[in-house]
Amino acid sequence: MRNIAKEVGALIRSHRKALGISQEALAARSQIDRSYMGRIERGEVNVTLKALWDIAASMEISAKLLIPE
Amino acid sequence: MRNIAKEVGALIRSHRKALGISQEALAARSQIDRSYMGRIERGEVNVTLKALWDIAASMEISAKLLIPE
Repeated sequence: MRNIAKEVGALIRSHRKALGISQEALAARSQIDRSYMGRIERGEVNVTLKALWDIAASMEISAKLLIPE
Repeated sequence: MRNIAKEVGALIRSHRKALGISQEALAARSQIDRSYMGRIERGEVNVTLKALWDIAASMEISAKLLIPE
């Protein structure tokens, strides 16, 4: 069975790294707690669409890019 | 400010109607409580990615199609 949370977390991390920003900076921009952002990237939480939307917006990318194929 | 939950709910509803299935049937297929599905379609809840993924899978569409532009 696929682990969607893990796939989403990996997509967030890869887009964040492509932008060259730290997890801490992304958390601050997205107004998400830093430790929660770590858990999102590790796929430990069932992220809400709102959080995903805010993360995408803070990277100025479409939220669709954070959804696995 | 945009209401993402409402936009997502509208996308789910429009895809569901295009498939000609009832809200009740979609809820059953997605293993989501029927009243909760109603709230999702009305944009009353901050849906999780997992729920969105299950809803998309039950309609055999990509979850990306349920994410607003």
